[in-house]
Amino acid sequence: MKIALAQLNYKIGDIKGNLKKMTDNILSASERGADLIVFAELAVCGYPPEDLLEYKGFLQDCENAIQSLLPFSQEIGIIVGVPTRNDSGKGKGLYNAACFLYGGEVVSVVHKALLPIYDVFEEPKFFATGDRFEVISFRGRKIALTICEDIWNIGNENPLYDVCPMDQLSGQVPDFAINISAVVFSLGKAAERKDILKRNAVKYKLPVFNVNHVGAQTGLVFDGGSVVASPDGMIYREMPYFTEALEIFDLDEVTRGGREDERVLDEIASIHQALILGIRDYFKKQNLSTAILGLSGGLDSAVVAALATEALGKENVRGLLMPSKYSSSHSVEDAVALAQNLEIRFDLVPIKEIFDQYIYTLQPLFVGKAANVTEENIQARIRAMLLMAVSNKDGNILLNTSNKSEAAVGYGTLYGDLCGALSVLGDVYKTQVYALAHYINRNGIIVPEHTINKPPSAELSPGQKDSDSLPPYDVLDKILYEYIENLKGSNELIEMGFDNQVVESVLRKVRNNEFKRQQTPPLIRVSCRAFGLGKNIPVVNGYTA
Amino acid sequence: MKIALAQLNYKIGDIKGNLKKMTDNILSASERGADLIVFAELAVCGYPPEDLLEYKGFLQDCENAIQSLLPFSQEIGIIVGVPTRNDSGKGKGLYNAACFLYGGEVVSVVHKALLPIYDVFEEPKFFATGDRFEVISFRGRKIALTICEDIWNIGNENPLYDVCPMDQLSGQVPDFAINISAVVFSLGKAAERKDILKRNAVKYKLPVFNVNHVGAQTGLVFDGGSVVASPDGMIYREMPYFTEALEIFDLDEVTRGGREDERVLDEIASIHQALILGIRDYFKKQNLSTAILGLSGGLDSAVVAALATEALGKENVRGLLMPSKYSSSHSVEDAVALAQNLEIRFDLVPIKEIFDQYIYTLQPLFVGKAANVTEENIQARIRAMLLMAVSNKDGNILLNTSNKSEAAVGYGTLYGDLCGALSVLGDVYKTQVYALAHYINRNGIIVPEHTINKPPSAELSPGQKDSDSLPPYDVLDKILYEYIENLKGSNELIEMGFDNQVVESVLRKVRNNEFKRQQTPPLIRVSCRAFGLGKNIPVVNGYTA
Repeated sequence: MKIALAQLNYKIGDIKGNLKKMTDNILSASERGADLIVFAELAVCGYPPEDLLEYKGFLQDCENAIQSLLPFSQEIGIIVGVPTRNDSGKGKGLYNAACFLYGGEVVSVVHKALLPIYDVFEEPKFFATGDRFEVISFRGRKIALTICEDIWNIGNENPLYDVCPMDQLSGQVPDFAINISAVVFSLGKAAERKDILKRNAVKYKLPVFNVNHVGAQTGLVFDGGSVVASPDGMIYREMPYFTEALEIFDLDEVTRGGREDERVLDEIASIHQALILGIRDYFKKQNLSTAILGLSGGLDSAVVAALATEALGKENVRGLLMPSKYSSSHSVEDAVALAQNLEIRFDLVPIKEIFDQYIYTLQPLFVGKAANVTEENIQARIRAMLLMAVSNKDGNILLNTSNKSEAAVGYGTLYGDLCGALSVLGDVYKTQVYALAHYINRNGIIVPEHTINKPPSAELSPGQKDSDSLPPYDVLDKILYEYIENLKGSNELIEMGFDNQVVESVLRKVRNNEFKRQQTPPLIRVSCRAFGLGKNIPVVNGYTA
Repeated sequence: MKIALAQLNYKIGDIKGNLKKMTDNILSASERGADLIVFAELAVCGYPPEDLLEYKGFLQDCENAIQSLLPFSQEIGIIVGVPTRNDSGKGKGLYNAACFLYGGEVVSVVHKALLPIYDVFEEPKFFATGDRFEVISFRGRKIALTICEDIWNIGNENPLYDVCPMDQLSGQVPDFAINISAVVFSLGKAAERKDILKRNAVKYKLPVFNVNHVGAQTGLVFDGGSVVASPDGMIYREMPYFTEALEIFDLDEVTRGGREDERVLDEIASIHQALILGIRDYFKKQNLSTAILGLSGGLDSAVVAALATEALGKENVRGLLMPSKYSSSHSVEDAVALAQNLEIRFDLVPIKEIFDQYIYTLQPLFVGKAANVTEENIQARIRAMLLMAVSNKDGNILLNTSNKSEAAVGYGTLYGDLCGALSVLGDVYKTQVYALAHYINRNGIIVPEHTINKPPSAELSPGQKDSDSLPPYDVLDKILYEYIENLKGSNELIEMGFDNQVVESVLRKVRNNEFKRQQTPPLIRVSCRAFGLGKNIPVVNGYTA
């Protein structure tokens, strides 16, 4: 038996477009002799469909899509993820389902039984819990079909769940297992997924075929890397990451095993690819073409410009250079060098005259009041306004360049450098931005060395340095990582050896700046804890530890 | 037996402050002869604590708070909501619990069994499901103690739940029932809550004592209105709305019943109070004092100014008048009249010179390009920048004045009139804003009549009217209400009789502006479906119906 795994890039809500992708792949797989083709979890509507699931018309469109697929199933089995209605009168009104189509009919429907609710997942908000476990017979073989989380409770070791679907199915002696998934990318997640698939193959002595999503849905990236695991515990095939693929496998060969195709993924290379896919899909899926950003000569904007250029093409990225009187002599030179290295368009737009006009206009209100952060913010906001003006006039989409370290401690101006349609680095710590810059320069200088080597500065007041108000980034990032990703509070951080005063000062900044984070653009998630995606902290909040 | 119900305004995360409130009320209730005092759901930490629950130190502080309450329980029973740990090794690591304290000990702990996941609620993300149901014996009586949602499955009629805690408890023949709650305010919700409490009293032939939260937590408002229902189905007492209260009831009198204290709540009056509480608590709970907003002479800013003045006091509200060359002759007059009616400070700040400077600076980039929405947006953004500059300089907090109708169709400028720390009207349709204006004027003109009567206009281009690009607000709001609150799609709306083209045009605008809504300020929720609160739509999304 030949099994085709279709690892595709769907668009949420674009049911017609997703259907077209699927039928194209069915025809292609059929031509190549496949008996069965497998699409990912909720492939019909894209993942996660969120509150679109609450609209009747949306569900009807999903059902119609399954009907449209039926004629394609005359000669080939089709497994496809789709929301289906729960008419039992008990539980939520939908199931997260996998339909098995064959001979022009819906032969079988599997309901997801383990519904994740943690991190970015909130499936029990929409879906009822599946509780029937039956293998599917197809051309003399029996298939144990599960959906994503269903295989993440091996041996009932996962405290979140009471049932292990594969235990239920294994009693019916399946010949192989299929798991359709939508695993959201974050650092280390692919290895975890691979390990779970491997452990399932070994425990149940079955080949396991996994089909994952690939592509970005606003800020959520799906990295592909669909896995075929053999009963001997070897990774028979790890499909490509961050790109679509259709591959066909011979069941007997996979069952026999003895082939190892496992990859080791480099962390920074993964982040690099995830961010590029995040930018590309944000534009492509909205029929947008050109990006604009401010080029300060600093590290963050340089890295974003490089990523955008790789994602969209050099003809589709432009920069504005907007030096102020506090900009260092090198700022413009560094920004120009970057733009020239990338071969992107750039324009120089001065902000001094507009700034002076603001000060003049505000003078009656500000008389007798010392200059403070107000004047710094005015500069940052003028730049944002100029970027937005050009964006509005020419239809360019503004990319935000602030990073996760800054977002955490509120080092940025709301309605200033925190503007943008998409935050490219909003889930990337500053120390990771340095690593990205080195990675971007792996085959030659793109990000100017001076940009990498000079001390970071917002250049909004004379001689200003980030280190005036923040601890060094290597210390700051370690504290932030422990606080955000590992949920360590101040006592635990101090026990870990971080300086008491530094910890208190950093955490105070994090707590006091939730209001900024709740108004900043969607970000591309690359960590297991991204601001605004599955992480909710009340703005008004008296907790101080 | 005398039962004290403490309807208090907690602050999320401020465990010390919440504890102080509770001990003050315990002492007061004791003095007034109470046998038992009841606090609301998760009173110790405030509701909803969201991801603060993931920090160990936070949970430890909650446990310590219970220990601190024990000495107060020598002579009076205390019922208090608090998160507790689930050490069973199964399910999520916490319970949403109610502790019963007496004689210096924790006598009993009840775990919430029905955990809501819909709308703004996501309790299963943090809490395991309670499954023990035991009445509590106290001074010769038996108490059926439940937490909020636990009583919302009368007769197992609610498809979301498999168990009815009150059915379980009623077998143990309780003498009365206590329900501690955190019901989020929205139009009509108080009546629904009252009805559920009444039905429980009748079904189980018991007096039911309910204690609800009061106060705003960022955008979520809790309206108080704690209810005491008698077994005869009469509302013995409906405690005040939108304010704290401590009231003491005689159990025998409530059991006897025959007293009706039911209120009818006016919709617009409720919204009015909810918005005022929302503003007041946003400021008070963050130790902020003064608000600033732009006064355009239009309806929305006038209503927000009036609400803010009532919430914060006239000395704590100031306005900026920032007319442009497109402002009507009446704009400044109307704004001045409003400020004078409210007796608030206002300053006139012209935007023409700054605008001209932007146009001059951008001229090299804009040469040969026609004026379009870009120039309109520049004006709106200059105003926002001036407001933010004054805000930064003087420490005033910017209130956003855009309404739900505008937010829905994207009628507003990102980083312009969509700026602000708090969106006062972001969940209030334009037609409701009119009703609010009339309500505000109920005892005399505050909002100038001309402001109410003139056609709405953004005044960003010559002769511009809202009706140039939008259907009349009474039509628009009906469509939006059906689409947002009642989840009707385009087909259903057209079947309901709305014009095909108008529906398509409105829904297209709603769909295309999710990106703006995801960057706008937190809003005060008054409807059952508020943007950004329990409503999630992907920004990149191909669904078109």
